[in-house]
Amino acid sequence: MSGAFDALMRFQRETEALSQVMGRLGWDQETMMPEGAAEQRAEEMAALAGVLHRRRTDPRIGEWLAGAEAPDELGARQLAEVAREFERTARVPEELASALARTTSLAHRVWADARATEDFALFLPKLEEVVDLSREKGAALADGGDAYDALLEDYEPGTTAADLDAMFGALRPRLTALRDRVLGADRAIPSLGRDFDEAGQLAISTDLARAFGYDTNHGRIDKAVHPFSSGSGLDVRITTRTEAHNPANCFYSTIHEVGHATYEQGVARALLLTPLGRGASMGVHESQSRIFENQLGRSRAFTGWLHGRMEAEFGDIGTDAHGFYGAMNAVRQGYIRTEADEVNYNLHVLMRFDIERDLIAGRLAPADLPEAWDTRFEWDFGVAVDKPSNGCLQDVHWSEALFGYFPTYTLGNVYAGCLHAAIRADIPDLDDHLAKGDPMPAVLWLRERVHVHGAAKEPAQIIADATGRTPDEGPLLDYLEDKFAALYGV
Amino acid sequence: MSGAFDALMRFQRETEALSQVMGRLGWDQETMMPEGAAEQRAEEMAALAGVLHRRRTDPRIGEWLAGAEAPDELGARQLAEVAREFERTARVPEELASALARTTSLAHRVWADARATEDFALFLPKLEEVVDLSREKGAALADGGDAYDALLEDYEPGTTAADLDAMFGALRPRLTALRDRVLGADRAIPSLGRDFDEAGQLAISTDLARAFGYDTNHGRIDKAVHPFSSGSGLDVRITTRTEAHNPANCFYSTIHEVGHATYEQGVARALLLTPLGRGASMGVHESQSRIFENQLGRSRAFTGWLHGRMEAEFGDIGTDAHGFYGAMNAVRQGYIRTEADEVNYNLHVLMRFDIERDLIAGRLAPADLPEAWDTRFEWDFGVAVDKPSNGCLQDVHWSEALFGYFPTYTLGNVYAGCLHAAIRADIPDLDDHLAKGDPMPAVLWLRERVHVHGAAKEPAQIIADATGRTPDEGPLLDYLEDKFAALYGV
Repeated sequence: MSGAFDALMRFQRETEALSQVMGRLGWDQETMMPEGAAEQRAEEMAALAGVLHRRRTDPRIGEWLAGAEAPDELGARQLAEVAREFERTARVPEELASALARTTSLAHRVWADARATEDFALFLPKLEEVVDLSREKGAALADGGDAYDALLEDYEPGTTAADLDAMFGALRPRLTALRDRVLGADRAIPSLGRDFDEAGQLAISTDLARAFGYDTNHGRIDKAVHPFSSGSGLDVRITTRTEAHNPANCFYSTIHEVGHATYEQGVARALLLTPLGRGASMGVHESQSRIFENQLGRSRAFTGWLHGRMEAEFGDIGTDAHGFYGAMNAVRQGYIRTEADEVNYNLHVLMRFDIERDLIAGRLAPADLPEAWDTRFEWDFGVAVDKPSNGCLQDVHWSEALFGYFPTYTLGNVYAGCLHAAIRADIPDLDDHLAKGDPMPAVLWLRERVHVHGAAKEPAQIIADATGRTPDEGPLLDYLEDKFAALYGV
Repeated sequence: MSGAFDALMRFQRETEALSQVMGRLGWDQETMMPEGAAEQRAEEMAALAGVLHRRRTDPRIGEWLAGAEAPDELGARQLAEVAREFERTARVPEELASALARTTSLAHRVWADARATEDFALFLPKLEEVVDLSREKGAALADGGDAYDALLEDYEPGTTAADLDAMFGALRPRLTALRDRVLGADRAIPSLGRDFDEAGQLAISTDLARAFGYDTNHGRIDKAVHPFSSGSGLDVRITTRTEAHNPANCFYSTIHEVGHATYEQGVARALLLTPLGRGASMGVHESQSRIFENQLGRSRAFTGWLHGRMEAEFGDIGTDAHGFYGAMNAVRQGYIRTEADEVNYNLHVLMRFDIERDLIAGRLAPADLPEAWDTRFEWDFGVAVDKPSNGCLQDVHWSEALFGYFPTYTLGNVYAGCLHAAIRADIPDLDDHLAKGDPMPAVLWLRERVHVHGAAKEPAQIIADATGRTPDEGPLLDYLEDKFAALYGV
C-alpha cells in the first residue's frame, strides 16, 4: 500500500505549502500591508484558514492513514504526526476555526490601537470574543479533559500544565532568591547614556544576524512593532525594532529571532514541506532563540566583540567592554517581558501562565484582566503598573489566541540551560570564538544535534539526545546564579 | 431560490479572497521575496492555483447556477459572469492549470536571469514549456475554435483577433505616416543632460501618485524590475523603477500604474470581492493607465507643472518648461516598448500581436523567436536589434504565459483616445487644472463613468456609455496627429 502513503504525502505537501502562504500573509500584515486593508485581509485569511481546515479534516486522510504502510522509520514518524494532527483538527468545527482566524486578524489590529492609546476598553470586546472562542476550541479539543492542556498541546506536544507547574515550582524560589540578592547589591547599574541612530543599529543588527548563521538568501529582515520570525524551509523571514536610547533592544531582538529562523533554516532539506519539516515544538524553538540571545549573545566574551563593533559604528559609546557587559546584562525592575533581563524574565512568564489558565478556566473574566494583572504584578515584582501598555496590553499573544504559548518560553529557557552546559563541555574554547564575534561553533553544534531533526523526534527527546541527560531546570539555575553572582558581586 | 444565489455569492466571495492572496504572492515575489525562495514559492503558488482551480470547477457552482434566482439586474450580471468563468475554467484540466502556475513561477525567474545575462538559450527551455502549455490551454478553451481567440477572451471578453486585426489595420498607415513625418522633422530632440538621484525621483513619484488620486491608505509603492499594479479592493499596490539619467521612466511608470490602481480603488464598494469587483477588461484597464500617463500626464499643461516640481527638487534642470514638454514627448527610434513614445508605442504592440499569434498557432517555434523578432523589428522600425534584452527578452509577458495580453495595450490606447475627447468636451478648462498639477477633475470624471462600474458592464459598453459613441480609433489618431504635428512643426 505504498500508493496510499505516497498519495497522503503529496496531499500533505500541498497543505504545508498553503500553510506557508498563511504565514506569509501574517508577515505581510505586520510589515508591509497598508493600514486600510485590514478588513479585506481578515476575509482573505479567513478564506485560507477555511481551505486549510477542510484539507486538515479531509476524510481521505483517514482512508490513506488506514491503508498507508510507511517505507521506513521516518515515514512512520510522518504518519504518526499526520494522525495526531488529523485527530486534533477534526475536533474543531470549521466554523469555529474560521471565526478564530477572522476574529484574531481584526483583534490584532485593535490590540495595536488599544496599546498605542492606552485604552484597554477598546480591546476588551475583541478580547472577550477571542477568549470565548479559545475556550470553545479548548473544550472541543479536550473532549472531556482539561481545556488548557488541550490548547497547550498545540505548542508543546506531550506536556501538561501539571508538568510545567512542577518545573516552575522548582524554578521560582531560586529565581526570586537570586533576584533579591542582585537587586539588593550595592553596585551601580551601568547604562549607555546617549542615543544611537537607527541606520547604525540596523547595520549592526544585520551583521549580528549573519554572524549567528542567518541565511539572507533564504530570508530577509524588516521592522515591526513586535519582532517575530515567520516561515519554514527556503523562506524564513525575521523582523526587529529599534529604540534610539536602547540599542540592546534591536540587537537582542534580532539575535533572538535569528535563533528561531536559523533553526527553521537548518532543518534537513529532505523534511521540507513535510509534516515534520519544522521546529519540534515552541519550547525547543525558544531554547534556540534564548541560547542565541543570552548564553551566547550576552556572554562576556561576545559582548566584548560587540562593544568593539559598537565603537566602530558610533565612535566612543561612553563605557568600556566591562561596563558594556554589565549594561547588556543589567538586572532591573521593569514592566516589559520582552525587555526583561535573564533573572526576571521567567517570573514574567510564570505570571502569564497562571493568568491565562484562569482566563481559559473561566475563573477570570476578560473585563477583570487589568485588575488581576496589576494585582499579581505588584505581588510578584513589588511595583504598581503605571499604564496598560506596561501591563496587560504589552504582549501580542492573547489578541492572536495563543493561549498555552507563554509557558513554552520558560520551558525553552530550561532547555537552553541544558544545551548550553553540554556545548560548554564539548567546546571548551568557545569563548575564544565568541570573543572574535563568531558563535558559529555553537550554532553548528546545535544545527547537527537539534536543527536538522526538525520535528522527527519528540521535543524532550531531542534535548535528551543532544545533551545526554533528561532535561531539568538545574543547569539553567546554576548558570544564572554563577553569572549574576559574579557580575553583581553577591 | 434566493438560497442558491446567496450560497453561490458566499462561495464566490471566498474564491475572490483567495484570488487576492494569489496576487499578493505574485507581488511579494517581485518585491520582497528572498532570491533562494523561488522553488518553494513555485510550490506554494501551484498549491494555491490548485485550490482556486478546484473551487472554480466545483460542481456545486453548476448546481447553484441552475437553482439561483437573481434578486435584481446586478445579481443577474453576477450570475452571468460566474457562468462564463465556470464554463471556461471547467475546460482546463486541473493538472494543466497547476503545471502552468508552477512553470510560469520558475520561468519568470529564469527570464529575469536570461535578460540580465543576454542569454536567450537560458530562457528557451522554459519558454518552450510555457508555449506548449499555453497552446494546450488555448486548444482546451477553444473546443474546436481558434486557440488564440480563446486565450484573448481571458483579457478582453467578446473581442477576437479578427476584430483587432481590422482596428490595427486602420491604425497602422496613419501611425507610420505620422512617425515618418516626425522622424524626418528638422527639429532637435531635447533631453535632460544630467543625472537625478533616486530619492528625489521617488519623492516626485509619490507626489504624482497622490496627485492622480492614488490612495496610499489602501496601497503602497515599491520598486521592481518591471512596474506593475497588483490587487483589487482595499489593497492595491504598485511598483515603479528608477534610472538616474531618465527620470521620465520613473514618473510615467508611476502614473501609468496609478491609472490601473486608481481604477481598482474606484470600483464601487458594494462590488468588492464579488465576481464583478474589478476592472472590466485589460483594454479598459489600459485605457485608464494610458490616459493618466499620456493624454493627462504628458500634456503641455501638466508637464509645465512637473517642470516646476523638478526644479523645486533638483534645482536647475537645464531646460525651460517648453523644452521639458518636448523632452517628455520626444519621438525616437528605440528598442523598448515600455519606453516608447506615443507615436511608436502601438507599432511595438502590433508586432508582438502578430508574433504571439504565430507562436500559439505553431507557425513559429520558440527556438526561432529571436530571429523572427529581429527580422520583424528591422522591417517595422528600420533598425537592427543589438541584444536580446532590447529584443525578445525585454517583456515579462510570455514568461508568465500572458498570450493575448499584448493587443489589449493598443485597444486601451484606442479607448483612451475616445475617453479623452469626451473629457475635453465636458471639462473645457481642464488645462487650467493640469497646469496646477491637478488632474483630479479628469480622474473624478473617469471614476464616475468608468471606475465605479467595475466589471458590471461589457467593456466596450462602458466606453460607449461614458463617451456617447461607439469606440473607434479615430479620436486617438486625431489626438496624436494634432499633438505631434504641433510639437514637431510638421
